Amino acid sequence: MIIVHGLLGRPTPQLEADADRSDWVVGGTRHLDALHVAPERRITLGALRPAIERISGLPSGTRVTIVASGDPLYFGVVRALRARGIRPAVVTAPSSIATAFAAVGLPWDDAVVVSAHGRPIGPALNLARAFPKVAVFTGGDHGIRELAAGLAGQRRWFVLAERLGEPDERVRVLDSEQAHEVEPMEPNVVLVLAAHPDDPDRDWDGTVARPQRADRSALGAVTPAAALAFARLLPEPGELLWARGPLAGDLAALAGWAGAAITLDDPPEAPDLVLTDSSSDIGDSARAVVVTGPAPDPLPEGYHWAREVVDGHQVTTGVRT
Amino acid sequence: MIIVHGLLGRPTPQLEADADRSDWVVGGTRHLDALHVAPERRITLGALRPAIERISGLPSGTRVTIVASGDPLYFGVVRALRARGIRPAVVTAPSSIATAFAAVGLPWDDAVVVSAHGRPIGPALNLARAFPKVAVFTGGDHGIRELAAGLAGQRRWFVLAERLGEPDERVRVLDSEQAHEVEPMEPNVVLVLAAHPDDPDRDWDGTVARPQRADRSALGAVTPAAALAFARLLPEPGELLWARGPLAGDLAALAGWAGAAITLDDPPEAPDLVLTDSSSDIGDSARAVVVTGPAPDPLPEGYHWAREVVDGHQVTTGVRT
Repeated sequence: MIIVHGLLGRPTPQLEADADRSDWVVGGTRHLDALHVAPERRITLGALRPAIERISGLPSGTRVTIVASGDPLYFGVVRALRARGIRPAVVTAPSSIATAFAAVGLPWDDAVVVSAHGRPIGPALNLARAFPKVAVFTGGDHGIRELAAGLAGQRRWFVLAERLGEPDERVRVLDSEQAHEVEPMEPNVVLVLAAHPDDPDRDWDGTVARPQRADRSALGAVTPAAALAFARLLPEPGELLWARGPLAGDLAALAGWAGAAITLDDPPEAPDLVLTDSSSDIGDSARAVVVTGPAPDPLPEGYHWAREVVDGHQVTTGVRT
Repeated sequence: MIIVHGLLGRPTPQLEADADRSDWVVGGTRHLDALHVAPERRITLGALRPAIERISGLPSGTRVTIVASGDPLYFGVVRALRARGIRPAVVTAPSSIATAFAAVGLPWDDAVVVSAHGRPIGPALNLARAFPKVAVFTGGDHGIRELAAGLAGQRRWFVLAERLGEPDERVRVLDSEQAHEVEPMEPNVVLVLAAHPDDPDRDWDGTVARPQRADRSALGAVTPAAALAFARLLPEPGELLWARGPLAGDLAALAGWAGAAITLDDPPEAPDLVLTDSSSDIGDSARAVVVTGPAPDPLPEGYHWAREVVDGHQVTTGVRT
């Protein structure tokens, strides 16, 4: 019998009872101390993988309580347990993201939630460029200062929610400059907002948990060549498209509809997708390239290339192999 | 001072204290009874709008506690309060959706969440056709039986989570046939799943809270005409595309990438988008039509029409005005 309890703040009576009854209690030192777990019944986190190995090696029938931060089913521990064949019971708690939104009283059904914890920060930056309300699970060097630096030049507010549920919990609303210079306590989550939390909310249609879709009626007039370039690149939320040349405007509009970030200037970092009118911009950084002017000859290696003439445009596309 | 407490299950000591201290306590009868609120301090829900009118008319400085079901910031009451200029403090609780996933131990960071509460059921059906894990806020005649009926012929499991947090809470995993015949208690939420909760999880990249994106590498070969039809229609998650004719396969692949539902057979209900090779299918139900064969003459009313020749295809598109 394995049970996972989400926890943000004080343990519930049910968690205390489950922990008392268990052969083993798994969690961070602080949580195990709060539950008065004797040393011989502790599996202390630390690293998750060895703990899961140990749990999956226990005799069946062993009673195990796992204490996890926030909602263990939302960027949480249960996915890794299930991947090892374990099917624990779960008692949930609000995620740190939901708790951060509550601290500033802001609805989050129209937010995008992204993790930069042990992962590249690029997707979080690109989502925050494209959408007005983005929540970030931060980690190590991928925190509020790196977000503020990457979003320099864009008007954004930052909610820094530190040590949620702990006695020294602190939630602050910072402007870009403050976000760039703050010394955050760990752990924390960050909300990146196009408007201050006290400003009026944007329209939201209330149907699907996602940002309000852009109005596509304005996109009826894109050229066939831009439509083809779009179908070849298929920009996605979290990616950055660097667009130049005669198709750039149309493609940027389509990419915006799709939720990708767009830059028409020199990109702040390696773009995921490039539309350009010269061969000189084809570098190692791009996943895909569309050339609308003279194609380079020979074509660079490492791509699947196609040349097409659409509506008078030569469209040369290369998608990284 | 207005404070909103999320509640699913027993009141916390903080909620009890806030309710005791308040001039007014707003909530359902059951919640107000549980908090022992005297009749002269009650604003009973019922309908939300008159309650909000009454709250916004109270003298400033009035202490109000609002008791809301689940997470008041996730398809919850706070958005309506903010729209009236109120900026309440919020103490959150797990949403009924998060609680339903916890009841079956299933991660929900890769789920789509949609409301059919007081809204059409079509978007929920189309999301459940297109994605393997969809959570539905049900309502009235838009519940598990209507979902099961609309999804007939697709292999789906249904988690029916009734009266979460109440003494008679009940969570069941049902197959399509059982879901079609069950008599649900209100309120409830429903999870529509392509796999049983105990089955292994699908791959998920762990970066953004959304379903795993489809692999787009196979879509490099779509024809220019299909790319143009896609750019004209721009199918979105929650919509149903009915595709027929020579471009149907390519367009269906692109629409699948975009997250729209697709049918190549006669559609089970009014489609949002239509691609067809004959004029006879153009009915009043479609938001948009693409004709790849001879265009009807005269063109039906109610659409913005454009005729284009791309790559040898005549592509006639109509987007409902």
